[in-house]
Amino acid sequence: MTRPTLDIALIGSGFMGRAHALAFAAAARTFALPRAPRVTLLADRDLETAAAAATSLGIARATGDWREAIADRTIDMIAIATPNLLHAPIAIAALEAGKAVYCEKPLATSIPDAEAMVAAAAASTKPTAVGFTYLYNPMIVLARELIAAGEIGEITAFRGIHAEDFMASADAPYNWRCEADQAGGALADIGSHIIAMALHLVGDIAAVSGRLHTAHKARRNAAGAARAVTVDDQMDAVIEFSGGATGTLAASWIASGHKMGLAFEVSGTRGSIGFTQENFNELRLYRTGPGRTNGFTTICAGPEHGDYGAFCPAWGHQIGYNDLKTIEAKAAIEAACGGPSAAKSFVDALAVERVADAIRRSHRDGSWTKP
Amino acid sequence: MTRPTLDIALIGSGFMGRAHALAFAAAARTFALPRAPRVTLLADRDLETAAAAATSLGIARATGDWREAIADRTIDMIAIATPNLLHAPIAIAALEAGKAVYCEKPLATSIPDAEAMVAAAAASTKPTAVGFTYLYNPMIVLARELIAAGEIGEITAFRGIHAEDFMASADAPYNWRCEADQAGGALADIGSHIIAMALHLVGDIAAVSGRLHTAHKARRNAAGAARAVTVDDQMDAVIEFSGGATGTLAASWIASGHKMGLAFEVSGTRGSIGFTQENFNELRLYRTGPGRTNGFTTICAGPEHGDYGAFCPAWGHQIGYNDLKTIEAKAAIEAACGGPSAAKSFVDALAVERVADAIRRSHRDGSWTKP
Amino acid sequence: MTRPTLDIALIGSGFMGRAHALAFAAAARTFALPRAPRVTLLADRDLETAAAAATSLGIARATGDWREAIADRTIDMIAIATPNLLHAPIAIAALEAGKAVYCEKPLATSIPDAEAMVAAAAASTKPTAVGFTYLYNPMIVLARELIAAGEIGEITAFRGIHAEDFMASADAPYNWRCEADQAGGALADIGSHIIAMALHLVGDIAAVSGRLHTAHKARRNAAGAARAVTVDDQMDAVIEFSGGATGTLAASWIASGHKMGLAFEVSGTRGSIGFTQENFNELRLYRTGPGRTNGFTTICAGPEHGDYGAFCPAWGHQIGYNDLKTIEAKAAIEAACGGPSAAKSFVDALAVERVADAIRRSHRDGSWTKP
Amino acid sequence: MTRPTLDIALIGSGFMGRAHALAFAAAARTFALPRAPRVTLLADRDLETAAAAATSLGIARATGDWREAIADRTIDMIAIATPNLLHAPIAIAALEAGKAVYCEKPLATSIPDAEAMVAAAAASTKPTAVGFTYLYNPMIVLARELIAAGEIGEITAFRGIHAEDFMASADAPYNWRCEADQAGGALADIGSHIIAMALHLVGDIAAVSGRLHTAHKARRNAAGAARAVTVDDQMDAVIEFSGGATGTLAASWIASGHKMGLAFEVSGTRGSIGFTQENFNELRLYRTGPGRTNGFTTICAGPEHGDYGAFCPAWGHQIGYNDLKTIEAKAAIEAACGGPSAAKSFVDALAVERVADAIRRSHRDGSWTKP
Repeated sequence: MTRPTLDIALIGSGFMGRAHALAFAAAARTFALPRAPRVTLLADRDLETAAAAATSLGIARATGDWREAIADRTIDMIAIATPNLLHAPIAIAALEAGKAVYCEKPLATSIPDAEAMVAAAAASTKPTAVGFTYLYNPMIVLARELIAAGEIGEITAFRGIHAEDFMASADAPYNWRCEADQAGGALADIGSHIIAMALHLVGDIAAVSGRLHTAHKARRNAAGAARAVTVDDQMDAVIEFSGGATGTLAASWIASGHKMGLAFEVSGTRGSIGFTQENFNELRLYRTGPGRTNGFTTICAGPEHGDYGAFCPAWGHQIGYNDLKTIEAKAAIEAACGGPSAAKSFVDALAVERVADAIRRSHRDGSWTKP
Repeated sequence: MTRPTLDIALIGSGFMGRAHALAFAAAARTFALPRAPRVTLLADRDLETAAAAATSLGIARATGDWREAIADRTIDMIAIATPNLLHAPIAIAALEAGKAVYCEKPLATSIPDAEAMVAAAAASTKPTAVGFTYLYNPMIVLARELIAAGEIGEITAFRGIHAEDFMASADAPYNWRCEADQAGGALADIGSHIIAMALHLVGDIAAVSGRLHTAHKARRNAAGAARAVTVDDQMDAVIEFSGGATGTLAASWIASGHKMGLAFEVSGTRGSIGFTQENFNELRLYRTGPGRTNGFTTICAGPEHGDYGAFCPAWGHQIGYNDLKTIEAKAAIEAACGGPSAAKSFVDALAVERVADAIRRSHRDGSWTKP
Repeated sequence: MTRPTLDIALIGSGFMGRAHALAFAAAARTFALPRAPRVTLLADRDLETAAAAATSLGIARATGDWREAIADRTIDMIAIATPNLLHAPIAIAALEAGKAVYCEKPLATSIPDAEAMVAAAAASTKPTAVGFTYLYNPMIVLARELIAAGEIGEITAFRGIHAEDFMASADAPYNWRCEADQAGGALADIGSHIIAMALHLVGDIAAVSGRLHTAHKARRNAAGAARAVTVDDQMDAVIEFSGGATGTLAASWIASGHKMGLAFEVSGTRGSIGFTQENFNELRLYRTGPGRTNGFTTICAGPEHGDYGAFCPAWGHQIGYNDLKTIEAKAAIEAACGGPSAAKSFVDALAVERVADAIRRSHRDGSWTKP
Repeated sequence: MTRPTLDIALIGSGFMGRAHALAFAAAARTFALPRAPRVTLLADRDLETAAAAATSLGIARATGDWREAIADRTIDMIAIATPNLLHAPIAIAALEAGKAVYCEKPLATSIPDAEAMVAAAAASTKPTAVGFTYLYNPMIVLARELIAAGEIGEITAFRGIHAEDFMASADAPYNWRCEADQAGGALADIGSHIIAMALHLVGDIAAVSGRLHTAHKARRNAAGAARAVTVDDQMDAVIEFSGGATGTLAASWIASGHKMGLAFEVSGTRGSIGFTQENFNELRLYRTGPGRTNGFTTICAGPEHGDYGAFCPAWGHQIGYNDLKTIEAKAAIEAACGGPSAAKSFVDALAVERVADAIRRSHRDGSWTKP
């Protein structure tokens, strides 16, 4: 007897679409899933692009119109890896057509669009999933378990940053990331990761006061023409959680020297947890105790942590970024199969967007703002 | 021919007074100073206390009234290591009597007091010095030189924290640090260090938006009685420098696991500098360059850095906290001798107090505030 | 026009056989290879075992006799993932049958067997490859390039260790790793990794003086019976390279606290390189220069390093252990296709075995020994 | 009632003599000592040199003949900070004259000299002390206590190195450190520190097999003349302790990038301890336990550790190299006062020299050697 399949249509065959295709395949190889996932249809902006990518990725069918995927009754899940502006129309159509949806982050390019997507999800019986890759890390799973179990006491502070430096140079070219209506800017593009982490580990944020900074006011595009930059190079905010804890959030794509600097420390009345994505197979844990031999303990990822054991049978071997993406795909598949799942939903993603939007409004108004 | 002496009266013989006496002696042993410093008079709250301490510290004369030290014509410099409330009256009297003044931080317990002290200094020809120990670290001297030389480009961000955990437990007793009018609270007590560092390295702060948080609303005093706590356990703020850079400041005495976590990263368009007081003989430096072999370089303190060589002739041996205090005393002595000095003055200390006060007002008013 | 295929027979379907199957598939997805690798036949100790694994791994054919794979004219490469005792007979038969061979390490369980394998390879026109996973790490590729380019001057020292702790407890059970004739013991089982690293980076070892230590003289097997342990728990040796450099090698499976502690520092007259597999996406590089801002630089893996870019398009995302195994499989495939390849051959593997054997003889004889 | 004094004659006023004078003064200020130490006489190679240094250091009397100090009945302790060749004659004369002796390391420049010194000490009722500065570090005190208490189980391995790089360049000048009969060479000059550490923490070494390497066979002296170098630039050895543990020792003054790289890891059946002098206010401790939250804990120096509290009242402030020297002086003073003391004696120092000598003989003979 064979398992039923989970038939997936993938919309978008660029870098992220390709990553999705590989992650679905890897998830199928790595995990025991309730249904066998297979991508049976690939849609892109025209048939020629889609057909070429489908061949390269070993996908049976291709189309130049994503609406065909929505209309296809054999498709169980729509995976969206298109430019950000298309997330909302595709996701809403897919949900209305009774399909599960797995959408790349950011959820949408505006709060109203994101709210419409959540409304569509609420009106549907089908689950949704959004790609917050870093939350699926076994060490973040451990951090969350420790916090939930009260191992570090009542949470008093979360201070985090997502720091990269690919735009640090004045010579970094103007591109779509410099466009506000494409969800550009450091806050929208990478700040969502640290916001998601704060919400995931500590819970709702009640109020923010933030400031955006554009260090390079103009950049040259590929043609060499100077273009004014209207988005932020970095964001800094002070935050207050609903539970009373306070802290800071920052995002920067001009943080010279940092390549994947998603880092935080969360403190409680009986301990602290520290983490940086630059060594993501480690977690630092402090628990209050006799001082003579106490300190931060560096925990090394191993089979006892989350899904690590599905990749490596022994401690210290380390999983990689693509393995995190595979765990994310597994969560989306499990959600689509209707069972329990660690997937972050449209509701979770909207909460992230609302915090980002509150920081943006706080900057504009010079005041504290509620998400 | 012998050098002239610099005769010092020390006011206060508690922990910090003792540290001053030792630092003056160590500075005399370690550095070639323009005049030979000697503490000739010790004042404390009563003669008995003062006399006992004077004997123990090898100081010739003692008095129970600090006004005697002011009146003493042989005294060149007054060193103030009293409870914070006495800083202002002693310093002002000393300056009016034509003496140099070296005062422990915080400068005063209120902005008006601090302003009066600065006014007295402005009306005097004598120099002032304030004890911001951590700024005298050879690695911080290096950081400042690198920034001033443009080695990391135009500064875009400063994010720093002073994190300790001596009040993390709900069982930490109520004491003077829990009293707002004694300059208690994490912001006033330890936040001044990270504020001073930000000003020292990046320059004036134009605006702040901060939030204070009291995690433990009541603590028991030595007698076991519960007392309401009105000061902050931690402070978080977003800041904007006059030069345009932005960032965050935090201070916490409930940051579980941190013992001397004065840490920051300052970023520029061509590099970054990272530091933590927990390994204060190191500085991490990143400078933009070809990626294949680039990264953060860990610089180890050595004779090429600031005053390190006065303590150790070779790299990597490491200086300690008391050596930092010795460098601070040297700066105060050099200032009192009228020559060039790295000492931080009352004007510098007032600027620190103003930022702290602006954060406090910002919290109270829920708005951005100018220092 | 389609690429020709490279048809592979995999012998062994245990943990390592499965890892090979996945690595071949991952290499095909990840790299542009001269021929398309596909595992078409799986052999194991009996047909039932082989058939079940073949179904699970999606391999078309199965057999209970590895000689069938040797006899099969459609097979281009034999991949050996059997118990160590079978490496020699299978590899020799495969080479005699004109097939490329990719063998797991250790090459053999005795030097004569390993020599016979090398002789068979020398008599064949077909290439060989051996699985030294850690040598394919992009950061090790970088280290080797830097050394070859003279970036750290003339090499003076290599000091390395492979430290794990899975046998640290006296309660760790007796198993095949405790049998000398199964290539058990810390030296044979994990020491080969650090020996291979030393040879890979610095070149031939001319002489060794080593000592083996068995901390737990007896262990209980699965049935609870105490068995005498005749293999080493740890090995320590001083070494001299043909080029004149000296240093130390160590291997331990009782190094409490270490999970994958393959670590070394290689020093030259103008610099040093440090590495630990516990953070294998980093390399530490020191180059002689003006002391004021010099120190070890932590290089973070990125697309400029080896095959990293085939997995992640941006710095700092990190590859995982399975990605290293994929790069190893790629090298074996490229070798089998007859083109240039980074694969380590039987000759390289024999050199590793000879150093291990020399350490063993040195311990037995209490003397310096030549590999 | 005043304490009796401990009157000290200091022989040698170079860099190390000066360090001794400062350390005696610092010990007097820092610790409650049974007698009040005071340096009353300074001897050097001629009266002029001695008198100038005595003035500068505030020492009352000076002499150009060290025998005067031996003959002086008021002197309780002789502190020796002369060139190494003079250690033996001065120490023996002092002991014969009934004085306590505190001698800089190395004890002597030959084993017979060192043995004669130990014999003189045995024939005297007066205590001896030798300056192994790094053993007095509060974190090393902690390490030793943890090992003694069985916290990491039965010791199985010690692997350590003393790595510096001040001779790494071929341009480093020829000087006395290049002379074998002056106790030159990396093994004699700095290797003694890591040998002393191994003996201090793990106990007697039963056998060694070592190799010396001279990377730069000639160096130019101050006059620019090329001189053949006959001492080692680095030493590597494998060792076996009397207790059964094995491991490695290394010393190098050409270890590019290391400034004070005295580093080791000691492993036991239930844990491990790691340390580097480059961050000497930290100790890393691993203790066997449930894997999910276990790992190496970084312990930060504080008042609960050794003599740390005499310098700083709070954790994390850090002591410096001169503070270690002060603790060493305290131990020598306490020994001279006849009470319990942590001072290392001539017997301890001879054991260190014997291991170094055994390594040297092992290199010469190409065989395992007993210290």
